[in-house]
Amino acid sequence: MVRGVDVDELVAQAREGHPRAVARLISLVEDDSPQLREIMAALTPYSGHAHVVGVTGSPGVGKSTSTSALIAEFRKQGKRVGVLAVDPSSPFSGGALLGDRIRMQDHAADDGVYIRSMASRGHLGGLSWSTPQALRVLDAAGFDVVVLETVGVGQSEIEVLGVADTVLVLLAPGMGDGIQAAKAGILEIGDIFVVNKADRDGARATSRELRHMINLGERPEGSWKAPIVLTVATKSEGLDKLASEIDAHFEWAKQSGALDVRRTKRARDEIEAIALAQLRKRFGQVGDAELLDELAGQVSGAKKDPYTAVDELLAAT
Amino acid sequence: MVRGVDVDELVAQAREGHPRAVARLISLVEDDSPQLREIMAALTPYSGHAHVVGVTGSPGVGKSTSTSALIAEFRKQGKRVGVLAVDPSSPFSGGALLGDRIRMQDHAADDGVYIRSMASRGHLGGLSWSTPQALRVLDAAGFDVVVLETVGVGQSEIEVLGVADTVLVLLAPGMGDGIQAAKAGILEIGDIFVVNKADRDGARATSRELRHMINLGERPEGSWKAPIVLTVATKSEGLDKLASEIDAHFEWAKQSGALDVRRTKRARDEIEAIALAQLRKRFGQVGDAELLDELAGQVSGAKKDPYTAVDELLAAT
Repeated sequence: MVRGVDVDELVAQAREGHPRAVARLISLVEDDSPQLREIMAALTPYSGHAHVVGVTGSPGVGKSTSTSALIAEFRKQGKRVGVLAVDPSSPFSGGALLGDRIRMQDHAADDGVYIRSMASRGHLGGLSWSTPQALRVLDAAGFDVVVLETVGVGQSEIEVLGVADTVLVLLAPGMGDGIQAAKAGILEIGDIFVVNKADRDGARATSRELRHMINLGERPEGSWKAPIVLTVATKSEGLDKLASEIDAHFEWAKQSGALDVRRTKRARDEIEAIALAQLRKRFGQVGDAELLDELAGQVSGAKKDPYTAVDELLAAT
Repeated sequence: MVRGVDVDELVAQAREGHPRAVARLISLVEDDSPQLREIMAALTPYSGHAHVVGVTGSPGVGKSTSTSALIAEFRKQGKRVGVLAVDPSSPFSGGALLGDRIRMQDHAADDGVYIRSMASRGHLGGLSWSTPQALRVLDAAGFDVVVLETVGVGQSEIEVLGVADTVLVLLAPGMGDGIQAAKAGILEIGDIFVVNKADRDGARATSRELRHMINLGERPEGSWKAPIVLTVATKSEGLDKLASEIDAHFEWAKQSGALDVRRTKRARDEIEAIALAQLRKRFGQVGDAELLDELAGQVSGAKKDPYTAVDELLAAT
């Protein structure tokens, strides 16, 4: 067996702000290390403080530039910023993540900023606990804001964004994004909409269309009304407004109890995912694995239906 | 409670070739009906005969036309053909599935052809047993060939195609598909590659590139060497060759034992997915649901790490 890492030492270093220790911990999450149990236990007392801001949008809306400008805005406020760029379609994606592109640019020399890309293959074919665990690392390491970024706007990305406290949806004029967004179920998850490249033709129209679509939905009394912020990220225009809307949403979420609800749901999903994986491992143990193979042979040979096979499998587990 | 359907009657009608009974059974699969257990038990004795042919390819390669031409080719051989078009990204997809487009065209009046689209949301966030169950319906209904079609070439589609006996990967000249295919992990799952639109410039080059990429992989003695078939589906050119390669692959798979291995794996995945869903339901029962909520609150409040929460949850289950 490979000698394990010294978890207490690693966590202490991460809390002192050593980027290598943070990187190492996230790699252990990514690799589904057997020490994750110990690591999560060590991180837990220090977690729960970071504001997790999810950012999504189609390619071409200026997501990379916007994220970079947003980091700069948070830095002006003296906040330490962690960025986690998650690609839920890895390991098959060959494209560079935003995180990689940003890292090279404006914030490389700033030790108040930590940027990390992470592949996130679904465990159990979809449910994944790697995102909440990586967030716990950054949270416990003392970052005030953690920007959670996804590569696109598909179903997998929506699931990844489910763990954010505040979700930004980026659009740009003239890309037919309004309709795209509606299709992808993005409207439902956006807490703040950003129309970037607002100096281009059509920005007002995109904003109007978006406002119209948002207003179509029912909103109960006291619920959050998603604002639309116009930005020109390349010139940092509108970023102060965006940062203050992000703060406003966080305050609202804390006051209204929405934050508690969201974070409890996040924890429930994480617990369920881990529990199911552990149950699945039990099937894989000696005896059961043979039984599963035997049952699978009977089902594929049309000798037994799958539900009867499940009954027999669970009775033996 | 809603009055259930008469399963025996429905299965008998499906076996007599009534398309409405087949449609009803697949709808019950799609809706995750409580009667699925009974339905699968009734279908099992009649299943295991159909040849399941998976078809995938990027938009624009002529998948719709190719599938339609392939159906015609199978019909010439006197085979009854079922088509199951699965969209793993539903319910968010707004686009029409191939199945819908084909249905309108060439085979609408042919009662030897049954075409059906199906949304396939992952149960448990990804693992889904709806595809193998819908295939069992078509198989037991006596279709000789079932064409399993997916909307694209992403990770979800690759999972859907995992249940096919023979997988066709469609490409077209000049679309950079070779590289796309490699990225998406498609090369590994293709049993037969089809370069459609072979009357266009670049068909030979695409074929060569593909051959080169296939040859890069290691192939053990006696393994299947994936052929590359050039077609012009709009003119039905190359379809006889394609159909004979499909037959050849099926024969090889039967002789070599590869078919047994693949179908047993398919059954194992189905059993596991059902078993996990049943275990998950147990969490949702009174007492456990409360416990899960309580544990999630403790984890989100940084009072307990998720692994300890899982221990407590499983101990109580």
